[in-house]
Amino acid sequence: MEVALITVGDELLSGDTVNTNANWLAAELSDRGVAVKRILSIPDERAEIAARVREYADDFDAVIVTGGIGSTPDDVTVEAVADAFDREMVVTDLTRESVERRLAAIRERVPDREFDVDVAAEAAVPAGSRPLVTEAGLAPGCVVENVYVMPGIPDELKATFETVGDEFAGDRRSRFLYTVEPESNIIAALAEAAERFDVAVGCYPDREAAHNRLKVTATDDDALDAAAAWLLENANASETPVSRDW
Amino acid sequence: MEVALITVGDELLSGDTVNTNANWLAAELSDRGVAVKRILSIPDERAEIAARVREYADDFDAVIVTGGIGSTPDDVTVEAVADAFDREMVVTDLTRESVERRLAAIRERVPDREFDVDVAAEAAVPAGSRPLVTEAGLAPGCVVENVYVMPGIPDELKATFETVGDEFAGDRRSRFLYTVEPESNIIAALAEAAERFDVAVGCYPDREAAHNRLKVTATDDDALDAAAAWLLENANASETPVSRDW
Repeated sequence: MEVALITVGDELLSGDTVNTNANWLAAELSDRGVAVKRILSIPDERAEIAARVREYADDFDAVIVTGGIGSTPDDVTVEAVADAFDREMVVTDLTRESVERRLAAIRERVPDREFDVDVAAEAAVPAGSRPLVTEAGLAPGCVVENVYVMPGIPDELKATFETVGDEFAGDRRSRFLYTVEPESNIIAALAEAAERFDVAVGCYPDREAAHNRLKVTATDDDALDAAAAWLLENANASETPVSRDW
Repeated sequence: MEVALITVGDELLSGDTVNTNANWLAAELSDRGVAVKRILSIPDERAEIAARVREYADDFDAVIVTGGIGSTPDDVTVEAVADAFDREMVVTDLTRESVERRLAAIRERVPDREFDVDVAAEAAVPAGSRPLVTEAGLAPGCVVENVYVMPGIPDELKATFETVGDEFAGDRRSRFLYTVEPESNIIAALAEAAERFDVAVGCYPDREAAHNRLKVTATDDDALDAAAAWLLENANASETPVSRDW
């Protein structure tokens, strides 16, 4: 399964916010054997979001779009996804009840404060979509065809992803190996491993840990194990972290 | 000035590495008034890198590409950028001398270790490019037309960006404001501010700080100040951080 992530928000592009959502989702998906093929951050611009959602929905098995699903004017993601699939925005019984239930809980917690909420606007999702409601946030997420729309606030994102996590699965597996050899001395071994076995091999210098970390990825368990065994021998690698003494 | 960032590397897409490089570059560029319009992470795939570099080079004033400029087989970024501009890879006097000087320093530091380095491979850059050499890393970065290629190791990236930082400048300015009002209660004010003045207004709930942060961005100082003054009044905002007491 191949997935693309689209993280929406001017705050990501201005460097105000580190994109921890993308990192968290990428790790969750990789743990499930899914190949994440693109992570794209774009501004809160409706036409741009719609165009990229359309493009990635065609190119990948699924797309996860996060951020910009609230009710302030800069939140245009859900409308943009509706545009991408030529859908109207509608309010469903499920989303209206979810918003009303969450609002009631908030009003109970803060009885002295007035919340002037447009429930219909808050509860609107693309027509025919599958709403994703949680107890974590007000505005619901949704699924339109193969596009999953989720909140940008990290706690809300995590709660929302967990409602659909089982829909993401793949057969990619990885193993990490470690070596103190200089990169230059193992180039030939890395190239040969990738050629001999049906695997991808990445090499990542980690200066703090004082080693090079190798990551071997495959969709076939036997190929993965054979490549790892070969690299243990031919790249002077180890299955547990090592440190340079030079 | 509008810039796109392309961060290359399977480790970003698998969630092994948080994309701090993109965040650092985005903040540096924003500080210089530059609008970052895209941040894209893609795998270490030569054809995909070449295609996206070509696309973004046409669409934006400049592109910064980071990661995958080393010498292991998974490092294909520089070759991909050469492909994007139909250039051969060449070794220049500057890059050869830089690699040799860095190698000599490493060998002096670690005299007992053999480094089997292919200097020509390490020093190769696209023909006609402007090499970017620093004392921080072995493989040089380069500039091809409006595309800046930089290392992925954070210290090397920072050293490389600083050699060209003055080439990035723009006229975007921002101001932060803070409010304890619920988002729902300031929707109309946010919409009106964006309509009255030539500004963009983002609203970011910060649960830890217990406020909503507003970011006003403009290319005209008077518009920025007028919009901020208007929001201070009409969104019950403050120039210094505030906290909800509800």
